[in-house]
Amino acid sequence: MKIEILTTGDEILQGTIIDTNSAWISEKCQMLGHEVTRHVSVGDDDKEIAEAVGAASGRADCVIVSGGLGPTADDITVEAVARAFGLKLKLDEAVLAEIRDFFGRVGRQMAKTNEKQALIPEGGRPLPNKVGTAPGIRVKLGRAECFFLPGVPRELYQIFDDSVLPWLKEEATGASEARVLRCFGLPEATIGEKLSDVPLHGARLSFRVKFPEILLKLIARSESDADARHSVDAAAAAIRERLGDVVYGEGETILPEVVGHMLRDRNMTVAVAESCTGGLIASHFTDVAGSSEYFERGVVSYSNRAKQELLGVSLDTLRANGAVSREAAMAMAEGVRRLSGAAIGIATTGIAGPGGGTPEKPVGTVHMAITTAERTEAFQYSFGGDRERLKLLFAMTAIDMVRKYLINL
Amino acid sequence: MKIEILTTGDEILQGTIIDTNSAWISEKCQMLGHEVTRHVSVGDDDKEIAEAVGAASGRADCVIVSGGLGPTADDITVEAVARAFGLKLKLDEAVLAEIRDFFGRVGRQMAKTNEKQALIPEGGRPLPNKVGTAPGIRVKLGRAECFFLPGVPRELYQIFDDSVLPWLKEEATGASEARVLRCFGLPEATIGEKLSDVPLHGARLSFRVKFPEILLKLIARSESDADARHSVDAAAAAIRERLGDVVYGEGETILPEVVGHMLRDRNMTVAVAESCTGGLIASHFTDVAGSSEYFERGVVSYSNRAKQELLGVSLDTLRANGAVSREAAMAMAEGVRRLSGAAIGIATTGIAGPGGGTPEKPVGTVHMAITTAERTEAFQYSFGGDRERLKLLFAMTAIDMVRKYLINL
Repeated sequence: MKIEILTTGDEILQGTIIDTNSAWISEKCQMLGHEVTRHVSVGDDDKEIAEAVGAASGRADCVIVSGGLGPTADDITVEAVARAFGLKLKLDEAVLAEIRDFFGRVGRQMAKTNEKQALIPEGGRPLPNKVGTAPGIRVKLGRAECFFLPGVPRELYQIFDDSVLPWLKEEATGASEARVLRCFGLPEATIGEKLSDVPLHGARLSFRVKFPEILLKLIARSESDADARHSVDAAAAAIRERLGDVVYGEGETILPEVVGHMLRDRNMTVAVAESCTGGLIASHFTDVAGSSEYFERGVVSYSNRAKQELLGVSLDTLRANGAVSREAAMAMAEGVRRLSGAAIGIATTGIAGPGGGTPEKPVGTVHMAITTAERTEAFQYSFGGDRERLKLLFAMTAIDMVRKYLINL
Repeated sequence: MKIEILTTGDEILQGTIIDTNSAWISEKCQMLGHEVTRHVSVGDDDKEIAEAVGAASGRADCVIVSGGLGPTADDITVEAVARAFGLKLKLDEAVLAEIRDFFGRVGRQMAKTNEKQALIPEGGRPLPNKVGTAPGIRVKLGRAECFFLPGVPRELYQIFDDSVLPWLKEEATGASEARVLRCFGLPEATIGEKLSDVPLHGARLSFRVKFPEILLKLIARSESDADARHSVDAAAAAIRERLGDVVYGEGETILPEVVGHMLRDRNMTVAVAESCTGGLIASHFTDVAGSSEYFERGVVSYSNRAKQELLGVSLDTLRANGAVSREAAMAMAEGVRRLSGAAIGIATTGIAGPGGGTPEKPVGTVHMAITTAERTEAFQYSFGGDRERLKLLFAMTAIDMVRKYLINL
């Protein structure tokens, strides 16, 4: 089946936002063996939208449109298409009630302008939106099955998975299997080199950088589900053998979740003392539902005073070695563990920049430490990048330090 | 001038990579007042490429194409276009010499396949590539000036800036001015309603949701720089009057930065006690370079024990009201201020879900407090969304609480 993807919005054509929806949808289509033949983006202009939908629905078997379903005046996709195809718009009372419900649930008043989100073209049907106000719409235009979805990614994802994907699966021929292996700790080029001659058993391998992680995607297509799964299983096993513990997980499971599972399995708790990461480690740990079971506390000790008061780091240690030092990181980790009673204490201290670097300790320098009842280990790294990237890289490296510690326990 | 942007490559249509070139080029064009009317992406297929270039060159004054100039068999853009437009390809000896030179400089042998990168369609001319092998090509097709550029972003950027931008500047007529107003605290629909009849003085207004913020972008075009600026100034003033302190800043300045400036101006420091936000407030504050001047410390007190030990919250307060309560939030804020010596203490306690909700305190409930030497204020909110969104919304609302407190100081 040939599929075209159309995204609408002045903000795309003006370069204010990067269209990520087209790639997301394409990947889903491709995994089912459908062929995406074109992406088109047009602005919030009714003639352009009508022309683009008309042309796409003449060429493709399926057209997936995102954007322009919001409540504001520049959200005009549905009106433009209805006018172009001579379809009447009808107020769908059930949809209107759902929009009202949504506002009730989030404790807000529905604006008058939201009413237009309940207008559905004749012959079309609404696709439920569980996370926002605008429903999607499915309608046949010419020979093409057309799906209209919101431009807001999380709303698009939900409606696509619930209401578009099942239809795409029905229309798919043959079997396919896809898997994502998640890696942390090596750059893309190094991973690429290590895997240059890895046996893929008929699967296709592609790389995606989701800084600071590298995601490896395997896809196999075959006559049968079992064949496709076998290819992916064999390729995944070969990759894991090459990369060892650089592969930390699969699918959607993020690193803090993997570490959280490991902590829970071992009935251990963790406490975090952060300087340069400024709360980002704690925030990543607590992004995981149920993290209160193993995340005991976090301390963001930016000032030396806070390091002394909250962590019991001695002024002597700070004076003799500086706040960015192996000794300070170890004292911080030991302090947060001792004061919290957690099984594991970890700490970071470093220079995220742009200021604060010196020839001996340039921006990108970080010391981190992990401590338990048995022993304390410290690590030093020098990374490159701007403040935001460095904070994230420091934080994820610290979380991965816990994973590697627990693996070797 | 109307411009269309065409990107080519199977990896775009398969969703393996996200096309960032189109947004990058669009922003450059838009800042000169040119209108980008369409983005199209097609695969490495000569018919699709020829059809797309043909259609774009019939509609637009300028077409910018990226991708398919490499040395491999699937790099077919130039051949496809030359064939479609009946143009002969000629080997450009000067270009070939430059490609040879490039390989010499990086110490590699030129492959035979690189020779095709020196093929230029008749009537066209090469655009020097200083960072790679494939030159860009400029050629008039029909009424449109067409630029063919490599898909590799750094090569595209260099050739665009050196050889396309100067021409776009020559072709630009009139002046333009753009400005972004950043809003927090109202949903898009409500802002849209409030601004439905705001006088824009000739400027154009567009909305962009960057959850949980709403960005308002104003663009004005005019004969003179002064006129364009005057339009944007007047529209921005009218919007600010309507929205009041919902507009927290302009341009790229994020909310924690605005609050940071206010704290620094007042020579005040802040300390943060977080439960449900799990370090995210501290992380946002410390995303700003130089935040160590006013960010004294953060405490992530997930457990009741941590609330008592790190913040001096009494067990009586927690028992009588629960950890998610107005009283707990106030005691946490007062505790972190007292223990840190900061001028301002803030605290959050709430339920980010998905578990932990009760009928009285459902998921999305949050209490927050701010305290200074003068007084303590507490706020309660009920928000909707998943854990990730709730954490972010709680955190940004708390940071905005500081802003509003300081405005009214």
